[in-house]
Amino acid sequence: MTSIAIDAMGGDFGEKPIIEGVIQALKEREFKAILVGDPQKLKTLIPQELNSYIEYEEAFDVFAMEENSTDALKRKDSTIYKAIELVRNQKAKAVVSAGHSGATMSLATLRLGRLANIARPAIATLMPNIHSRTLVLDVGANVDCKSEHLFQFAIMGEAYAKEILNITKPKIALLSNGEEECKGNELTKEAHQLLKQLPNFVGNAEGRDIFNGTIDVLVCDGFNGNILLKTGEGVASVITKLLKQEIQKSFLAKLGYLLAKPAFQELKTHIDYEEYGGAPLLGVKECVIISHGKSGPKAIKNAIFQALNFAQSNINQTIEKELANYEID
Amino acid sequence: MTSIAIDAMGGDFGEKPIIEGVIQALKEREFKAILVGDPQKLKTLIPQELNSYIEYEEAFDVFAMEENSTDALKRKDSTIYKAIELVRNQKAKAVVSAGHSGATMSLATLRLGRLANIARPAIATLMPNIHSRTLVLDVGANVDCKSEHLFQFAIMGEAYAKEILNITKPKIALLSNGEEECKGNELTKEAHQLLKQLPNFVGNAEGRDIFNGTIDVLVCDGFNGNILLKTGEGVASVITKLLKQEIQKSFLAKLGYLLAKPAFQELKTHIDYEEYGGAPLLGVKECVIISHGKSGPKAIKNAIFQALNFAQSNINQTIEKELANYEID
Repeated sequence: MTSIAIDAMGGDFGEKPIIEGVIQALKEREFKAILVGDPQKLKTLIPQELNSYIEYEEAFDVFAMEENSTDALKRKDSTIYKAIELVRNQKAKAVVSAGHSGATMSLATLRLGRLANIARPAIATLMPNIHSRTLVLDVGANVDCKSEHLFQFAIMGEAYAKEILNITKPKIALLSNGEEECKGNELTKEAHQLLKQLPNFVGNAEGRDIFNGTIDVLVCDGFNGNILLKTGEGVASVITKLLKQEIQKSFLAKLGYLLAKPAFQELKTHIDYEEYGGAPLLGVKECVIISHGKSGPKAIKNAIFQALNFAQSNINQTIEKELANYEID
Repeated sequence: MTSIAIDAMGGDFGEKPIIEGVIQALKEREFKAILVGDPQKLKTLIPQELNSYIEYEEAFDVFAMEENSTDALKRKDSTIYKAIELVRNQKAKAVVSAGHSGATMSLATLRLGRLANIARPAIATLMPNIHSRTLVLDVGANVDCKSEHLFQFAIMGEAYAKEILNITKPKIALLSNGEEECKGNELTKEAHQLLKQLPNFVGNAEGRDIFNGTIDVLVCDGFNGNILLKTGEGVASVITKLLKQEIQKSFLAKLGYLLAKPAFQELKTHIDYEEYGGAPLLGVKECVIISHGKSGPKAIKNAIFQALNFAQSNINQTIEKELANYEID
């Protein structure tokens, strides 16, 4: 049975939504959950019939969101440190944490180590497009990148799309300010030349292209990835709010909204990040899934499924093998 | 009467939507339109009663969208070149062009010249937020920037917000990957330190903050500005498409949509770029308004109003005066 280490107390809302997510996940798939936190608190939340799928790892220190991730290495009794150590010591095959993402990243990189030929691990996330989803990386681990880092992100994203998302021939694009090869800033123009070596590279993509369903993997630096992600969230939220405001102004519109509500709910499900689980940190040895601090049970459940799929795949070997084919430095 | 030079043939759809926009504008405000293009073609589109508000400047060459803007200086008979020359020779107070934006930018910079202490002119555009609009600059003129360029963009954006948008104390923010001062890439961290000198600087803003109505002027490099703008367009368009798809699936939802339609139309108006006119190129002497290549009559009308407001303001003097207060290099 695959064991997953779960930072049970690191999220914004404490242990409850996380444990609820673990319980939901256990109803659908078989795995062992190693809950890292205060066993006293956690045990009361677990139904008796699940006891055989649960282990506890004691940790009473929680790394707070406002703390500086450079302190993470010293906090050996924190839930996130101990969760990572379970993977390091091969007691678990993967970590899921909704805690401090900077701390998780630096502990994963320093305690688990990077894959061969990976200079910078990257956070990959799924964004909704008109048909399904696009994997975007990096979305925040590296704000200043060199072109060879973007090349490594492309290799990692391609491997994830193949092994975890089951896309046989994933289309890879580079985020830029225009589709033409000559468009871009210094970084992306250089990266474009490296990426051209990849058979699945389809060229530059603009901010709007990533939603039309023609791209499976979008490569960018962590600064731009963050802008892309947050802008997407912001626009989706403002459109919904504006529409609600307008609908509130008339009785007929309110009635109309009620009739069309299932359509709105379908849309909401499609663009709901909780459906996608968490964001894998690619480029470290082993599997680390970073969940949103505000994750509810559904997000945690899906993050655990991601972790299981990752742990049962060969993605890290694929990344190392692929990278060995290219001489980039 | 203020004269506005209008590149009558540079847009994607030829002269018709542009002339229609000029006619609509003349119905609401008094100005002289100098139409640059083929007078034979243009005259047939103008109603007789408007003849006293129209002049023609002969130009038969149109700079095509796929051409390289480095050739713009040699194309002395192109509509855009001649339109800019009308301003240079003080026959017009402003230019409006829906033609090749790169050519317009380089001709404006080279033929009209930059304002004192401005290293790089920037394209500014209005993006909708929950309450009104946010001015974003640069959105494409400069893909690789230094921190002092971003500082100059802030000064220009502030002046535009005060003089044209009538915001007494515009809140200025810097686009970054986190609100905290320590967040950002090398460029934005350096720029943050310069921007702190400005009394109206409110700090970093994330991609999602710019839609909640708390920021009047958002400063970024042209690469990120482009990503922001195009992502916004992409998300708005995909949400609308997904919702329509879902609504089509059920009779009740279709009925509901019909009842709520006025609310959808209000939303559409709020986020319609044609309502905002064009994008001013800030930092050049005189006034240059760059319109979308696909501009319809409404966008052209609003771009002309922008040009009139700009030409009747003191914005360029304000920018030079403000910049003289700071020693940045």
